[in-house]
Amino acid sequence: MKNFVRFLPLLVSLSASAQSTADAIIARELQTSRAYETLGHITDDIGARLTGSQGAAKAVRWTTQQFREWGMPVTNEPVMVPHWVRGREEARLVSPADHNIVLTAIGGSVATPAAGITADVIEVDSFDELKTLGAAKLRGKIVFYNNPMDMELVRTHRAFEAYRIAVAFRGAGASRAAEYGAKAVVIRSVGSASLRTPHTGALRYDPKQPKIPAAAMTAEDAMLVHRLLARGKRVRMHMILTPRTLPDVMSANVIAEIRGSEKPEEIVLIGAHLDSWDLATGAIDDGSGVAMVMETMRLLKEMKLTPRRTIRAVLFMNEENGSRGGQQYAKDHGKDKHVAAIETDAGGAAPTGFTTSIKGDTLTALETRTKPLAAVSANRFEVAAEVGADIDPLTQAGVPSFGLVPEPLHYFDYHHTNADTLDKVDPKELAQDTAAIAALAWILAE
Amino acid sequence: MKNFVRFLPLLVSLSASAQSTADAIIARELQTSRAYETLGHITDDIGARLTGSQGAAKAVRWTTQQFREWGMPVTNEPVMVPHWVRGREEARLVSPADHNIVLTAIGGSVATPAAGITADVIEVDSFDELKTLGAAKLRGKIVFYNNPMDMELVRTHRAFEAYRIAVAFRGAGASRAAEYGAKAVVIRSVGSASLRTPHTGALRYDPKQPKIPAAAMTAEDAMLVHRLLARGKRVRMHMILTPRTLPDVMSANVIAEIRGSEKPEEIVLIGAHLDSWDLATGAIDDGSGVAMVMETMRLLKEMKLTPRRTIRAVLFMNEENGSRGGQQYAKDHGKDKHVAAIETDAGGAAPTGFTTSIKGDTLTALETRTKPLAAVSANRFEVAAEVGADIDPLTQAGVPSFGLVPEPLHYFDYHHTNADTLDKVDPKELAQDTAAIAALAWILAE
Repeated sequence: MKNFVRFLPLLVSLSASAQSTADAIIARELQTSRAYETLGHITDDIGARLTGSQGAAKAVRWTTQQFREWGMPVTNEPVMVPHWVRGREEARLVSPADHNIVLTAIGGSVATPAAGITADVIEVDSFDELKTLGAAKLRGKIVFYNNPMDMELVRTHRAFEAYRIAVAFRGAGASRAAEYGAKAVVIRSVGSASLRTPHTGALRYDPKQPKIPAAAMTAEDAMLVHRLLARGKRVRMHMILTPRTLPDVMSANVIAEIRGSEKPEEIVLIGAHLDSWDLATGAIDDGSGVAMVMETMRLLKEMKLTPRRTIRAVLFMNEENGSRGGQQYAKDHGKDKHVAAIETDAGGAAPTGFTTSIKGDTLTALETRTKPLAAVSANRFEVAAEVGADIDPLTQAGVPSFGLVPEPLHYFDYHHTNADTLDKVDPKELAQDTAAIAALAWILAE
Repeated sequence: MKNFVRFLPLLVSLSASAQSTADAIIARELQTSRAYETLGHITDDIGARLTGSQGAAKAVRWTTQQFREWGMPVTNEPVMVPHWVRGREEARLVSPADHNIVLTAIGGSVATPAAGITADVIEVDSFDELKTLGAAKLRGKIVFYNNPMDMELVRTHRAFEAYRIAVAFRGAGASRAAEYGAKAVVIRSVGSASLRTPHTGALRYDPKQPKIPAAAMTAEDAMLVHRLLARGKRVRMHMILTPRTLPDVMSANVIAEIRGSEKPEEIVLIGAHLDSWDLATGAIDDGSGVAMVMETMRLLKEMKLTPRRTIRAVLFMNEENGSRGGQQYAKDHGKDKHVAAIETDAGGAAPTGFTTSIKGDTLTALETRTKPLAAVSANRFEVAAEVGADIDPLTQAGVPSFGLVPEPLHYFDYHHTNADTLDKVDPKELAQDTAAIAALAWILAE
């Protein structure tokens, strides 16, 4: 792919008409957006879309049909995906007092024995602490990772940085504790708000360690257990999780195109992920992104705009618990001439700009071409090592990549919870996001 | 009781020393408060305290023992209470799409048949609409009362007014719909915030109507059902509730006193309710109130202050689903010489003043005596018809009554949910509330 990244000279020759068309795209989207209507279909009519579920299959069918109705070529590209199914998830403290504990299984977790696990809870706040305590203290115990998100980062536009720090324990915590003989782990939910709200998400088991059950309890429950332990109490928890990992199933990435008029083999990819967690309807993660990508295509088609290069919409399957769609796409299309890739997987709040893999003069040159984005406050570019999970193989291969950055302040209030529902998205803000993506895609494709 | 309400001349003769003692009480409480520690015991060590539960019994024992340790006479006065036990509570839309519905049984609800109820959902927003639709449209249906709290009232210090309006459907909705043959009811949860958060509370069945199951779904689910119905879809819901009403059990009000030095037969009552809903540990409803009342007694005892009249602390049982404690107290003590009653059952946020049953010159006279309350911004009195549920029989009998008004903006975010936990209370604000109650009680007792 690396040979296709030298696209910048093209930007320099970008005509003024690309910018005025970008202005028109933004204006039209803000006036006539149907993005929220699309999002309503995805959330209300389809619902939760966990990889392998009926909802996910329905989403593949509906989005495919929708692209077709809008008059553009669309394909389903096969992806084998995991099929994890949540079961019961219940916990109580049995000592020092009876308390209901609200938690949710971390995606991919194995089940507890049918009768559950009852064990002492040991609190840690780092992997180092596991080492200090050692197997003598941890064997047979429930290890409790008590790592809140750094709210100072959340309040200062760095919520994703706070997330990356805290989420390490969700991803690797089970295997790291299993190394010392722990029976199960519970983490403090990774989130920035809670009304006794557990946040799910995926884990990765280390194949060298025994697989132990893992769950995320709410901030309130984490604080309760912490208080009891801090007062020197022995805390024992009973916990039942009955998730199952079923055989992989065949699913698909959904790919639609508006073919370029001059260089159709050169591709500007715009992508989002079609799957969601199972607890809610995935309105912000990533129904919003899917709606933006679909609406961009509908809008360009409706405006009868044909770019010089091809704009390719990719709705990836399985971002949440495997990234198989992104990997499959990279495998199947790694040799395609991607001149740029844009991912939107950070919610549907008002746009603030994009993260990008390009920098220096290249970025400066782009910035002079993307002034129309100022109309929706999306003309700020921030260099980042990773701009999106699904396009990351392209980014790593050198494709100039962009990630939409909606205002992140409240994203992790709802992220991966049962409160990720349509009412959390504002139609006007979603239209602004769509306008930013459509305009950027257009500029890159001209 | 009416003959004891003429206490106001006493206020006029209140010495300046009562005010300076009130100043000292406030200062001492703000410096050395143990109210939050007491609240921590009630919530963390005892936990949920629904009437009839082991938690409620434990709360009676612990508070009794605590008053005794603080060196004051304490009694348990028997109250027969209802014993309602929550069971499973599950619901899904089966049409037009599969959606999990998050709801909770309304306290006192009967169960659905074991296999659940599956029926069409009909939305109404008033009792009048039931009449308009009539039995022809409502028979066999699930009636959905879609009445959000008025957020404008919530934002303008009138959250309790918003609550009183919206809660009518929780209380009477089941029987009103049963009159037209409805099979069950769901209401939109009465609350001012939601992360898919159901709010429970009590209902009252009309003995003339069949008892039908009743649940509160979250704001998000209510909005989903509303959107689907508004688009003309037929919405069918499957719902299983398995609550049980067990035989009444014996419980108790806990009553402690600091006997008056001059007129021990004249009583200033300070009260809160010991029971909570079962979904959480009732930190704001009404653990906070219990902590304030207990801390007031501890503080006065520690400061070796003996008022002229008796200050009587009453921890009422069963405010939430029956008010039996309040009724029993009125029955047993209606002839006691109550010169005033103060209830605290509106959370533990910073104090803003008191509601009161007194008015006119009487109130003006009081206001001149309660200036020390300004130190904690609690010197605002607002006339109200009802100032507290447990003392309402006294209020109605003419006893000058007062209800603490903590800042109500966030109270209904947590009220009757599983998020009513210790972390929602700020220790400094709880100390301010306690200082306000202790100072007012002292002034009234001098």
